[in-house]
Amino acid sequence: MDLSTRYREILMKQKAYSYVLTIAGWDSNTEAPRGAFARRAEMLGVISGELFQLQTSNEYQEVINGLFERYNELDDITQREIKKAKKNLDKIIKIPKDEFIEYNKLINLSQKVWEDAKQNNDFGSFKGNLDKIVAFNKKFIKYYKIDDQPYNVLLDEYEDGMSMKEYDNFFDTLKRDLVPFVKEVLNSGKVLNDAFITDIYPKEKQKEFANYLIDVVAFNRDNGLMKESVHPFTWNTHSSDVRFTTRYLEDFMFSSIFAAIHELGHATYEQQIDSKWDNTILNGGTSMGIHESQSRFYENIVGRSFEFWEVHYPKLLEIFPKQLKNISLDDFYRGVNKVEASFIRVEADELTYSMHIMIRYEIERMLFSDEIKVDDLPKVWNEKMMEYLGIEPKNDSEGVLQDVHWSVGMFGYFPTYALGSAYAAQFYYAMKKEIDIENIVKSNNIKTINKWLKEKIHQFGGSKTPKELLLEVTGEEFNPKYYITFLKEKYSKLYL
Amino acid sequence: MDLSTRYREILMKQKAYSYVLTIAGWDSNTEAPRGAFARRAEMLGVISGELFQLQTSNEYQEVINGLFERYNELDDITQREIKKAKKNLDKIIKIPKDEFIEYNKLINLSQKVWEDAKQNNDFGSFKGNLDKIVAFNKKFIKYYKIDDQPYNVLLDEYEDGMSMKEYDNFFDTLKRDLVPFVKEVLNSGKVLNDAFITDIYPKEKQKEFANYLIDVVAFNRDNGLMKESVHPFTWNTHSSDVRFTTRYLEDFMFSSIFAAIHELGHATYEQQIDSKWDNTILNGGTSMGIHESQSRFYENIVGRSFEFWEVHYPKLLEIFPKQLKNISLDDFYRGVNKVEASFIRVEADELTYSMHIMIRYEIERMLFSDEIKVDDLPKVWNEKMMEYLGIEPKNDSEGVLQDVHWSVGMFGYFPTYALGSAYAAQFYYAMKKEIDIENIVKSNNIKTINKWLKEKIHQFGGSKTPKELLLEVTGEEFNPKYYITFLKEKYSKLYL
Repeated sequence: MDLSTRYREILMKQKAYSYVLTIAGWDSNTEAPRGAFARRAEMLGVISGELFQLQTSNEYQEVINGLFERYNELDDITQREIKKAKKNLDKIIKIPKDEFIEYNKLINLSQKVWEDAKQNNDFGSFKGNLDKIVAFNKKFIKYYKIDDQPYNVLLDEYEDGMSMKEYDNFFDTLKRDLVPFVKEVLNSGKVLNDAFITDIYPKEKQKEFANYLIDVVAFNRDNGLMKESVHPFTWNTHSSDVRFTTRYLEDFMFSSIFAAIHELGHATYEQQIDSKWDNTILNGGTSMGIHESQSRFYENIVGRSFEFWEVHYPKLLEIFPKQLKNISLDDFYRGVNKVEASFIRVEADELTYSMHIMIRYEIERMLFSDEIKVDDLPKVWNEKMMEYLGIEPKNDSEGVLQDVHWSVGMFGYFPTYALGSAYAAQFYYAMKKEIDIENIVKSNNIKTINKWLKEKIHQFGGSKTPKELLLEVTGEEFNPKYYITFLKEKYSKLYL
Repeated sequence: MDLSTRYREILMKQKAYSYVLTIAGWDSNTEAPRGAFARRAEMLGVISGELFQLQTSNEYQEVINGLFERYNELDDITQREIKKAKKNLDKIIKIPKDEFIEYNKLINLSQKVWEDAKQNNDFGSFKGNLDKIVAFNKKFIKYYKIDDQPYNVLLDEYEDGMSMKEYDNFFDTLKRDLVPFVKEVLNSGKVLNDAFITDIYPKEKQKEFANYLIDVVAFNRDNGLMKESVHPFTWNTHSSDVRFTTRYLEDFMFSSIFAAIHELGHATYEQQIDSKWDNTILNGGTSMGIHESQSRFYENIVGRSFEFWEVHYPKLLEIFPKQLKNISLDDFYRGVNKVEASFIRVEADELTYSMHIMIRYEIERMLFSDEIKVDDLPKVWNEKMMEYLGIEPKNDSEGVLQDVHWSVGMFGYFPTYALGSAYAAQFYYAMKKEIDIENIVKSNNIKTINKWLKEKIHQFGGSKTPKELLLEVTGEEFNPKYYITFLKEKYSKLYL
């Protein structure tokens, strides 16, 4: 059997193991009862171990290294695959199997621990797990023996080619050009007719509207579904099975609406990836930043536009006639774009959102440079909130415990959220040159936008890097100025 | 490493593979979108193949055969395990791996095909799959080279020690002693105040009552959950994660109520199994017949008793004040126990239920003795319905297509349903000698019944055979007379 065939065979097995772990993960995140988790950690630990075995076996190493030696003889696609596979392999073989299994067990258990800690506002009960997770990550980075700073290794995992240098540059630009504008807006003293925002919207009615949104975004219901979870997310095993969640807060209806549109952005990306990548490792979205650019595009650029509500506000009024009785379309549009200093990242408005990310970026940066310890997190968190947003969380549930990410070992992920918002704006100005976005949204024809994104971005899955996509779609490299321009244009009109 | 340790290690791996397949199965059965199934069949095929590998590897054979040779040196528990493992092994090693994988793919796809066929009332679209499933089963039985008739091999798989001889004897007793009584009841001409039965009961309200029932049966919500599916079932990965479904028919509320109580019986059994069996192959319920005896016990003996409704009817009235306005407790109790010739097994009353099973038993018996073909099923089905119940299905959805079992390759399973009902009655008369069942039910204290069943049956999981349990719990071997006595006592009072 030649190397390519052997590669393909091992890869299919790896995919099958990942597949069942993915299904189990969806179940864990959306419905598994509390009692399930101890046994689950044990059982999934075995399966992760088997996958690890496949990803590190001598045969697999032989195949990947063999193909890598013949790199120049490979076609472009296989080159991209082998480059990626080799990069993963070079890292993973350096982790002792026992530690890998132990880490996966820890991760499987910690999410529940975090959930409970968040619910009980008890950082202390989660601290021990988080400490272990951080320690594992630091140890793994050492094993890799990559000639770079620890945090850069993590950043690169979530966004190919991004390091502290690039992120520092990005966030410094935001600090210089955006932060003063944010302060201006926050201090504008503009008064909104906004009591409706915290009125009570029954969950079942919110579900009805979330279901309506699924069709507005033209999500393919045969190839996916929507469910409910504490923290909204998108999950996919394959382009024909893409699932996402939203959450329903009866006193904050915007949460379910914008979580749904946001996740529909991720989900649309996944559904539109060409199935020709299925049996390669280039399936799935290409990076976290690009993924987030899609969710942000749908959530903010489409979902918070005046045109969007021009066409969909009547439906919302029909579902909530009492709550929205005295609220005009204009009031509602302003409500949807209300800017304020707030605690919860996922509920933050479009303008202050990147402040929340800066805080997390800086904290992770310090944590992995050993400038602070896990013990210090609540304190540092609250200080940074004060520094950037001028407010201090009353408790850790609305502070350092709010996000799931660290409980599942995702460090270096957060900055891709801000990056994604900035990418989205850059894509927006490119799209604008070719199609009349405002009119398309106003005429409830989002399919046309989906089609454009499919052609330019989605279909390629992981076969193009973020850098390539930006260059090909927008004609230039990543440039945060579009993001700043977009925000200033929009929020000047609304607030200044 | 000694044989026992090696056995334990391989077993844990097998358990992990089964575990993820079980989670995927739950997902397939309760929410996976249509589009998921093609890729899923492919991916789960790989995992099933890996499990098959573990169940048939030379190492595993060496370990099991080695321990079997030392049978007399093993402790009682290990003896039981090895006996069971050896029996499974001797069968499975005779199936070629490729065929096993192919069969599993077929099964994974066929359930969806059946669902669609049932929905579209189109046996033709399912026939091809069913034909292949039957052919595979016949082929596998040949591979086993067991010196017995094919159908006996299948019967034994679901109920240790049961063959056509025992079942023929059981069903002949029913024909002789029960069928004439059933006819008497059906012809009694008793008129019920029963229009309420087909009144409209909104799904959300039915859900509320099903949720109430969960607590009535004292199901542990931390270790399981209830969901919805086309065909109600119970599914468990472990005693700490036991899930079941019910279904909601707005024009037949009894469906959700009795499906819920029935599945709660299965689920309570699984939840009460001692966790000391977890890492053995003696975990889970001991047989299909004993499992069904528990579900039938809760559904019929408890759930259709006068005492049950004496205490819970007020709650139902509270939820459905309009639909049940003119219905007295006595009317309701009679409605719950209404006897009539009907098409759908899962909705059949307690008395005619075993007729539905006889039909399936006789059909399977003929199918595996090559007396009929898959093509003949709709015709034979309808003839038997006419013979035993005097009615003929209008279409295949309410006839031969109604049950999921054959689509997932379960032949020989159905007779355990009737057997379970008969076991339940036998257990009932034993329980009656020790605790005051009627009073316990009337005082809404089902925990006491759960406790008795846990002590006598549940805790042992698969560590005792059905025969042992019957003998130990009731003091005698299986005896269908209790079943007949129970039914005659109850339905004479109601109808004659």
